[in-house]
Amino acid sequence: MALIVEKTSTGREYKVKDLSQADFGRLEIELAEVEMPGLMACRSEYGPSKPFAGARISGSLHMTIQTAVLIETLTALGAEVRWCSCNIFSTQDHAAAAIARDSAAVFAWKGETLAEYWWCTERALDWGTGGGPDLIVDDGGDATLLIHEGVKAEEEYEKSGKLPDPASTDNVEFQLVLGIIRDGLKVDPKKYHKMKERLVGVSEETTTGVKRLYQMQASGSLLFPAINVNDSVTKSKLLWEHITDAVFDNLYGCRHSLPDGLMRATDVMIAGKVGVVCGYGDVGKGCAAALKQAGARVIVTEIDPICALQALMEGIPVLPLEDVVAEADIFVTTTGNKDIIMVDHMKKMKNNAIVCNIGHFDNEIDMHGLETYPGIKRITIKPQTDRWVFPKTNSGIIVLAEGRLMNLGCATGHPSFVMSCSFTNQVIAQLELWKERKSGKYEKKVYVLPKHLDEKVAALHLGKLGAKLTKLTPEQAEYINVAVEGPYKPAHYRY
Amino acid sequence: MALIVEKTSTGREYKVKDLSQADFGRLEIELAEVEMPGLMACRSEYGPSKPFAGARISGSLHMTIQTAVLIETLTALGAEVRWCSCNIFSTQDHAAAAIARDSAAVFAWKGETLAEYWWCTERALDWGTGGGPDLIVDDGGDATLLIHEGVKAEEEYEKSGKLPDPASTDNVEFQLVLGIIRDGLKVDPKKYHKMKERLVGVSEETTTGVKRLYQMQASGSLLFPAINVNDSVTKSKLLWEHITDAVFDNLYGCRHSLPDGLMRATDVMIAGKVGVVCGYGDVGKGCAAALKQAGARVIVTEIDPICALQALMEGIPVLPLEDVVAEADIFVTTTGNKDIIMVDHMKKMKNNAIVCNIGHFDNEIDMHGLETYPGIKRITIKPQTDRWVFPKTNSGIIVLAEGRLMNLGCATGHPSFVMSCSFTNQVIAQLELWKERKSGKYEKKVYVLPKHLDEKVAALHLGKLGAKLTKLTPEQAEYINVAVEGPYKPAHYRY
Amino acid sequence: MALIVEKTSTGREYKVKDLSQADFGRLEIELAEVEMPGLMACRSEYGPSKPFAGARISGSLHMTIQTAVLIETLTALGAEVRWCSCNIFSTQDHAAAAIARDSAAVFAWKGETLAEYWWCTERALDWGTGGGPDLIVDDGGDATLLIHEGVKAEEEYEKSGKLPDPASTDNVEFQLVLGIIRDGLKVDPKKYHKMKERLVGVSEETTTGVKRLYQMQASGSLLFPAINVNDSVTKSKLLWEHITDAVFDNLYGCRHSLPDGLMRATDVMIAGKVGVVCGYGDVGKGCAAALKQAGARVIVTEIDPICALQALMEGIPVLPLEDVVAEADIFVTTTGNKDIIMVDHMKKMKNNAIVCNIGHFDNEIDMHGLETYPGIKRITIKPQTDRWVFPKTNSGIIVLAEGRLMNLGCATGHPSFVMSCSFTNQVIAQLELWKERKSGKYEKKVYVLPKHLDEKVAALHLGKLGAKLTKLTPEQAEYINVAVEGPYKPAHYRY
Amino acid sequence: MALIVEKTSTGREYKVKDLSQADFGRLEIELAEVEMPGLMACRSEYGPSKPFAGARISGSLHMTIQTAVLIETLTALGAEVRWCSCNIFSTQDHAAAAIARDSAAVFAWKGETLAEYWWCTERALDWGTGGGPDLIVDDGGDATLLIHEGVKAEEEYEKSGKLPDPASTDNVEFQLVLGIIRDGLKVDPKKYHKMKERLVGVSEETTTGVKRLYQMQASGSLLFPAINVNDSVTKSKLLWEHITDAVFDNLYGCRHSLPDGLMRATDVMIAGKVGVVCGYGDVGKGCAAALKQAGARVIVTEIDPICALQALMEGIPVLPLEDVVAEADIFVTTTGNKDIIMVDHMKKMKNNAIVCNIGHFDNEIDMHGLETYPGIKRITIKPQTDRWVFPKTNSGIIVLAEGRLMNLGCATGHPSFVMSCSFTNQVIAQLELWKERKSGKYEKKVYVLPKHLDEKVAALHLGKLGAKLTKLTPEQAEYINVAVEGPYKPAHYRY
Repeated sequence: MALIVEKTSTGREYKVKDLSQADFGRLEIELAEVEMPGLMACRSEYGPSKPFAGARISGSLHMTIQTAVLIETLTALGAEVRWCSCNIFSTQDHAAAAIARDSAAVFAWKGETLAEYWWCTERALDWGTGGGPDLIVDDGGDATLLIHEGVKAEEEYEKSGKLPDPASTDNVEFQLVLGIIRDGLKVDPKKYHKMKERLVGVSEETTTGVKRLYQMQASGSLLFPAINVNDSVTKSKLLWEHITDAVFDNLYGCRHSLPDGLMRATDVMIAGKVGVVCGYGDVGKGCAAALKQAGARVIVTEIDPICALQALMEGIPVLPLEDVVAEADIFVTTTGNKDIIMVDHMKKMKNNAIVCNIGHFDNEIDMHGLETYPGIKRITIKPQTDRWVFPKTNSGIIVLAEGRLMNLGCATGHPSFVMSCSFTNQVIAQLELWKERKSGKYEKKVYVLPKHLDEKVAALHLGKLGAKLTKLTPEQAEYINVAVEGPYKPAHYRY
Repeated sequence: MALIVEKTSTGREYKVKDLSQADFGRLEIELAEVEMPGLMACRSEYGPSKPFAGARISGSLHMTIQTAVLIETLTALGAEVRWCSCNIFSTQDHAAAAIARDSAAVFAWKGETLAEYWWCTERALDWGTGGGPDLIVDDGGDATLLIHEGVKAEEEYEKSGKLPDPASTDNVEFQLVLGIIRDGLKVDPKKYHKMKERLVGVSEETTTGVKRLYQMQASGSLLFPAINVNDSVTKSKLLWEHITDAVFDNLYGCRHSLPDGLMRATDVMIAGKVGVVCGYGDVGKGCAAALKQAGARVIVTEIDPICALQALMEGIPVLPLEDVVAEADIFVTTTGNKDIIMVDHMKKMKNNAIVCNIGHFDNEIDMHGLETYPGIKRITIKPQTDRWVFPKTNSGIIVLAEGRLMNLGCATGHPSFVMSCSFTNQVIAQLELWKERKSGKYEKKVYVLPKHLDEKVAALHLGKLGAKLTKLTPEQAEYINVAVEGPYKPAHYRY
Repeated sequence: MALIVEKTSTGREYKVKDLSQADFGRLEIELAEVEMPGLMACRSEYGPSKPFAGARISGSLHMTIQTAVLIETLTALGAEVRWCSCNIFSTQDHAAAAIARDSAAVFAWKGETLAEYWWCTERALDWGTGGGPDLIVDDGGDATLLIHEGVKAEEEYEKSGKLPDPASTDNVEFQLVLGIIRDGLKVDPKKYHKMKERLVGVSEETTTGVKRLYQMQASGSLLFPAINVNDSVTKSKLLWEHITDAVFDNLYGCRHSLPDGLMRATDVMIAGKVGVVCGYGDVGKGCAAALKQAGARVIVTEIDPICALQALMEGIPVLPLEDVVAEADIFVTTTGNKDIIMVDHMKKMKNNAIVCNIGHFDNEIDMHGLETYPGIKRITIKPQTDRWVFPKTNSGIIVLAEGRLMNLGCATGHPSFVMSCSFTNQVIAQLELWKERKSGKYEKKVYVLPKHLDEKVAALHLGKLGAKLTKLTPEQAEYINVAVEGPYKPAHYRY
Repeated sequence: MALIVEKTSTGREYKVKDLSQADFGRLEIELAEVEMPGLMACRSEYGPSKPFAGARISGSLHMTIQTAVLIETLTALGAEVRWCSCNIFSTQDHAAAAIARDSAAVFAWKGETLAEYWWCTERALDWGTGGGPDLIVDDGGDATLLIHEGVKAEEEYEKSGKLPDPASTDNVEFQLVLGIIRDGLKVDPKKYHKMKERLVGVSEETTTGVKRLYQMQASGSLLFPAINVNDSVTKSKLLWEHITDAVFDNLYGCRHSLPDGLMRATDVMIAGKVGVVCGYGDVGKGCAAALKQAGARVIVTEIDPICALQALMEGIPVLPLEDVVAEADIFVTTTGNKDIIMVDHMKKMKNNAIVCNIGHFDNEIDMHGLETYPGIKRITIKPQTDRWVFPKTNSGIIVLAEGRLMNLGCATGHPSFVMSCSFTNQVIAQLELWKERKSGKYEKKVYVLPKHLDEKVAALHLGKLGAKLTKLTPEQAEYINVAVEGPYKPAHYRY
């Protein structure tokens, strides 16, 4: 696509695939609203008082129908919004069209190149002459990264006059980041500094992004406050986890979206097949459950003996990938680690074995090894579904979503109800940052929200499912030493 | 679409949506072949001897990727083939394109009008001057119906000179049938008689079609032999059933394709929802299992106390629709009966309740009552997904596939592996009819195939799933009074 | 035990383990009544009119708490009853005590020798000077066998003066039968003829017993009418099946009682283990489901490709026993065939592997091979739980219930609710035979009851579980061509 | 039983039900050893060096077969051991007999009165003239309580000359404790002081016991170091949890032992019934899974919205007890709280509804309200299974294990494999306390063991189940920032 910003009749900027899909997007947004009771409750509760009046929010988060409901919750609360996707394949074009037409500036389409991706990210952060956003909603940390790298480059430039040099790195993606910063620097050598000045804070959605934030906090380079709305994994301290995020998103979300992605991409019958799930954390547990329930035999690979024992207790054998690579039909990586399924594994697989990743980056699967395998042939069945045929054998494997998250690439991501839990946390985090923007409550550190908010998010979703809670009597509450209205569990409770 | 027959460069006739999708269809056909070991085994076993050499086969059966593998199995065995779909929504256009370009005459596209549908059916049966097909592969019995009605009309015309009069019936679809016959009659008053003369027989796939065949047999009006390749339900006699068809197609097929259709059509999270499955036969059992495994609470409605007790033994409550209509989120009809979910039920449902049919005709759901409800508003979210909003309430329900089979309309039907069982039976039935075309073995009756062929079809599918059977010793076989090589069960065994 | 008949204060005969357990038995009988709604409904419906007034019923059927409720249903309907068990291990002594004290003549205890077993059988059939019973309730056909063999021997004796000679057979059990007949013959050479004369008919519960009946029917040697209340497996004709018996008893009953037996006998954790289920018929399906649900990995062995494919569709691999014998922890035979697990298999098993049979006779497991294995050591952990240690290895396996039905030997058989379905069929069959005793309706053949009675039995059990059926409208009934009040399915419907 | 200590031929003290059951106990202990790989690995690893040489260990923990394997692991490592049970119903008499005869001093039998219970506890702690034990293995904290109360009373006596007065409390059980201390005080006014002096520390198994320990730590009254080998629930700080204990014991243990207890106590068919599980923590999750898998419909009651949402995601409705009390068949309390099922609930239940507790103390069920209900009638079906009949109604409910833990009272507790995880933690804790007895490492506080030991315990159990772990490469370990050999998760990971 030509990277030219377009404008609506009201002058709002956008770049989407096809604005004529806005009506279709609007209809699906309306359906999703019914499935997202947490966000709708935020609109009822906070909408009238417009707490975000005057706030600019930039978001970098999969531009899906569900995200559209999040965006319009933010605007219903008074915010102005600019948005990009955090994944080149995850945009739903009709969602982007509806938002572009009706609610916010959007720069996103399904199937961006990496260069387009970073252009979109920069567009979402650039609010014109007034500088950047007040708040960032981040997923994976790319928006945060761009600002931090921008500031670093500007400091270097101020100091030494040196422009960032894309050729200084082997990392293709980082070359693009440096290029964008360099181009910006030529126009305004204080562009990212201005952003930094204005920024009240960021709320971050993912493990990966949170990890980067803690690293920056540890090295003292974090430029603004951050709220961790995913789980919080650090070595040095014990942090509170957002259960409604971590469990619902990972376990129940993937249990839904793994088979959805498999069926849309391949139409393969899951029953009767052998599925290997690499990793038995929350994502792996959801995937293994989904495959088992659909009638597959499941095998798990694990490094952690406790998770391994959990798999065994569910009747799932635990074996190394090497032992089962030749007999399985479906391989799913869920580890959050790298180098899980290598090209040498893929060579040994059955013809038309399906290989996909629902864990984390595309380096869980050795895509580089596959792409550079001598004589390999790639046949694209349809977008996001490729058959890779090894030379001489005429035997091939089917790789989904180019090794990236298959539930986003091949299906529509997690369903609305799951995302409602996650996004309600985001709204609450953004409200908190904005409310305290002048109080000094938040320093340049990473924060988590208190547990009772997690229980509140869960409670907002019960009515939709017809559930009624039991109330503690004061005597019972005293007996187990909690408050009648909660929180009901100690911070470290495992659920 | 303009109803004009097109021709390939080799002169083969077709009418499909978009021939340029043929490459995409071909890739998916190749994937499906790996998943259809029964059909591929037929190609290996019978292909070299071309047993269908000289045979013309007309098919009226959902024009999907899987059917493409069936068609090309028939052609690989020497047949010439013409094809139409047996459902206005079930064609996969890329499958039709690939077949049209490469293998057979096809008249089918997704979203035919009823008039287009019957035009296609007539085209599939019309082999030009030489008359009709030698064999028919039928699904639902529409091809068989057209010939029987045609013959009847020609007899009347010969007798009384009266042309069939579409105005003589209220049934819209039958008006179209009469119109087509009338138009044909004007051109050739012996058109359907010639077809009847040539026809060796039909193999029929569905309960509905089989029922019609037995009614014709009972009334003495059946014009040619028929093989029942589905279950065989008659009042007067006990017939053998094709287990590999009835169970695998209905139970396992629907278990796969119900959630697939729900997810593609609505992206709704199934976990946490309440699903009502009307009917707990094979289809209902598959649907209930699928919903339960996905985390829904399931309620079943039943008329039969034995099936009801089966549901209860699986932890599924059995209640009348009236008792649960206001509290459920998803409604699925699987009964094979009519008037299951009426517009009065639909009025009482929750906003955005999903209503769909995976059983049989669209009269399981009261579509007529819905369409004619005063003040009702239909909003098409996307093809096959409509929101119907009741007046004044602003509350609506979501109807999938216009009340027709939702797994075909909203997803891609049963997966290849399931269809391989079903279609292998078809190939075997067609081979049998053709082989015995001159022997007089088959009269103008309905027949079923012997049980050992059912076991053979199953056995052809085991290797793909890595299974190995145990062999009976002669002593063991004698002890349970079966042959070492089977069949292993009495004809009425329930599985 | 000394084989001496005892008498209650009212003069009723019995031989049980310990009459003082009668109170305990009574309490459990009262509990069971609440769980057996079908039998209790028979008491309400038929009790007042005493239809069995004047009838003598002899039963040979596991003397459990549930059977006690059956017996007292027969007596509540006016019958006089004598009873024995049909298995040496299956009597519950407190049930026998309560019945002996309160309701009927009983000859049964847990742990009979084979000699004691046949003595009890003979006692249950012998009503003193007046001859035998009017009706027999049989399970496995031993009561029926004894009369047939008795009559045969008496005919031979009358003809040739030859007494039956136990030494004429190698079969230890048949030697005992011949001995008993010989002893009876010496006292009254017309004993079994008198029984035959009086007998109105038998209703038979099991596959095995039914098979014998059909063989006798086929050879013309059947001496009285028989009603098959189990499934009816013959080669030559297609018979109607009692679904409430076959499915509920086998599938749901074993799903309950297999883990019950395993836990009581061994206290072993099922989760995490590998279980091999030999045979995937109804019993095998119930066992595989139970093990899988408890967290075991399950492997099935099968000879029938259709059943094998069913297992695969549930995610259960199908492999020959040889391939898995060394890696599994629990082995269950369910085949109804012989020689399934041989001593050579058992030698290769892991230490403390559990081997048990829930299918049929104890010849599913090669008990003879095990007992006669040179140097084998048997260590009885507790009754019905033996560890067999192979010489030199110090490795042993655990065999339950001496290879006989482990759910009866190690637990308490099927639960009351399951048996209520089965036994209600028995009561209805007995009523039918008795009502028609003079009408000539039943000849010396095997009969099955009409399907609508099966639906009635099921319906009697729904209320207890809170279920409500849907009623067909007359239009719907006509549409699917059934009566509004059923039966709803064709005779051969598979459920 | 007369409370007189008996002696073996070697002079070891004991008081058990029947020493003649020792052989049977020994056989079951040998079976259990095969199922307890963690303990057996401790014997192999530490046995040769006898690290407990010279140590006296007193245990207060259910005297079951599994505990016998624990005791003999402690003696194999060189300890001298005295033991009592921590529950009046949980002793397996054959296990106690085997240990008494072969390995350690035991004071325990099934069905102790409360007075007998505390006598046994005191006996287990009293090592004669030399004072008390070096180490305590505690479960529920009663041994620890007795020493603390004893010391307190002795201090009071020393100060004021006042003997403890049982009449000073309404609590019946505490009256017994005070009586025992008073009687001891009369003989030796420093008895418990001497114990305190000698004591190196205690390892505690349960939530309840751990809670008491933290309360004592908080109030400064803890008299010796304690290691928490269960989960660690405190308000003020975040503690590390023993996953292998908390999850395996609670979730998988109860999933096994709930149906086991139900079946042994009542023989009721679980399929088709409605089960209410009060509480959806780990125990509740295990119970709900067990009931659901057995074919019951499950309803959960919850106070915590997050746990409620988890239940909903598994298809389980969440409702208050009041809403469902009249329609359910089985009620299970798992909350760890009091006053869950009150007598007013029980009055409204169906006839023969089953009420049981698997959570914690018997105050989850209002046993006091039931026992004192005017006109109530208690009918003991068999030990641990009582029918309570309300006056006038003739309707009764069935209460298991007198409201105490039903899996211990009605079945045999958790299976060996589960307990192996738990008890291996105990052994490791005891080793640590003993090794550091002079180092001053442990103060009078509550401690937890480091996470890598938890992973070690899990790893020791994998081989038995045929599992093989994957090994991290150094690059992968660095990428996710853990050591190659673990621990693999942050302390607060939820599993």
